[in-house]
Amino acid sequence: MTLHLVLAESALELVPDEIRNTPAVKSDARRRATDPSAILLDRSIHHSSMLRLNRGLKRGRPDLVHAAILSATGTPLFINGQLRVYVHTNQDLVLQIEAGTRIPKNYFRFRGLAEKLLVERPETGLVKVSHAGVVELVRKVIGPDKVIGMSTQGAPDDIGELSGELAASRRPCVLVGGFPHGHFDPAVLRLTDRLVRISPLPLEAHVVVARVVYEVEKATSRIND
Amino acid sequence: MTLHLVLAESALELVPDEIRNTPAVKSDARRRATDPSAILLDRSIHHSSMLRLNRGLKRGRPDLVHAAILSATGTPLFINGQLRVYVHTNQDLVLQIEAGTRIPKNYFRFRGLAEKLLVERPETGLVKVSHAGVVELVRKVIGPDKVIGMSTQGAPDDIGELSGELAASRRPCVLVGGFPHGHFDPAVLRLTDRLVRISPLPLEAHVVVARVVYEVEKATSRIND
Repeated sequence: MTLHLVLAESALELVPDEIRNTPAVKSDARRRATDPSAILLDRSIHHSSMLRLNRGLKRGRPDLVHAAILSATGTPLFINGQLRVYVHTNQDLVLQIEAGTRIPKNYFRFRGLAEKLLVERPETGLVKVSHAGVVELVRKVIGPDKVIGMSTQGAPDDIGELSGELAASRRPCVLVGGFPHGHFDPAVLRLTDRLVRISPLPLEAHVVVARVVYEVEKATSRIND
Repeated sequence: MTLHLVLAESALELVPDEIRNTPAVKSDARRRATDPSAILLDRSIHHSSMLRLNRGLKRGRPDLVHAAILSATGTPLFINGQLRVYVHTNQDLVLQIEAGTRIPKNYFRFRGLAEKLLVERPETGLVKVSHAGVVELVRKVIGPDKVIGMSTQGAPDDIGELSGELAASRRPCVLVGGFPHGHFDPAVLRLTDRLVRISPLPLEAHVVVARVVYEVEKATSRIND
């Protein structure tokens, strides 16, 4: 079994065209001595400029995406090569993280890495970048035999049981939203065999990722015992 | 049951006296238009200055402490008030986080909060700061009926079983190292009823925290069912 984890519609993108000339963005770019087109959109810095963005509430949260990536890449399942991590962004770019790659825990380094990746879009290396929507990513790149979406809109389910099912698959795929508010796009929902809610409380992406990966890791080691 | 989680000997401190006049620290303080005494020690920025620090390898990793705090405070156990989080620093300060407090996921905001707390040391509020070693914190402030230390030096144990034991206690305490390398001080080791290793691989603090809290949360809900 190799688990394919997709952070879907993640709030990770460069500052978009339409707000590159706003004061908050220009002063941030000046302070960092770089071009507005090469910096990550970040609600904590560009909040006032983001008010005019379409679907702004789902965007500009690299901190949240960072935490979710670390939750996945710090696990034995990832270190041992049984977990693939894909960051699908709200601009339909996909960052595919090679098994075992160490992603910086330090936010400045993560930001620098993400900016470089989104600007240069390397086709090879420890993190590859390609252009694809979630549907294309799941159907054409991953080709899973089971797709589970994690969502507060899903049916309550015990992750213990769910993970047994995932671990018994050959190529299971789990989708977790990489955004702070709102829900999956309908096209993403249609991809899932099942939509699951693992807690009565809405959970942050990094907590969902930590729990799902951990349970799948436990279930796999039970199967292999 | 209320679980008391201590991040022990955490790599979180203000730039210490002895390196406040080094070039890396001075230029960082100038860039941030603040005094060197009021900024967090950070290996990714102050690395060259830190070479002369005693036990430097265990210090200056606010990113790692931040990730571990978020792992704990994002959980239902914390949000529902059954988890208390204490960040004990390598300078013997204790940041006590009130149940349910939202800690910023954004690193800049976290850094600002941590700097303010370490400079002002408020005795009341959502995060209180006091002066105490781990031994004093555990014995006098927490007063637990069981103390478990998580360490690669511990005996291999299944967290599922361990958490049943913790959830059956009234006031269990778990110690996780808030540092990147090395082991607990001997005084900390002597506090523990048991030292436990939960994975054949060395795990980052945020992964250990996520797993322990999750298992205790599950065990508590089983007991209360």
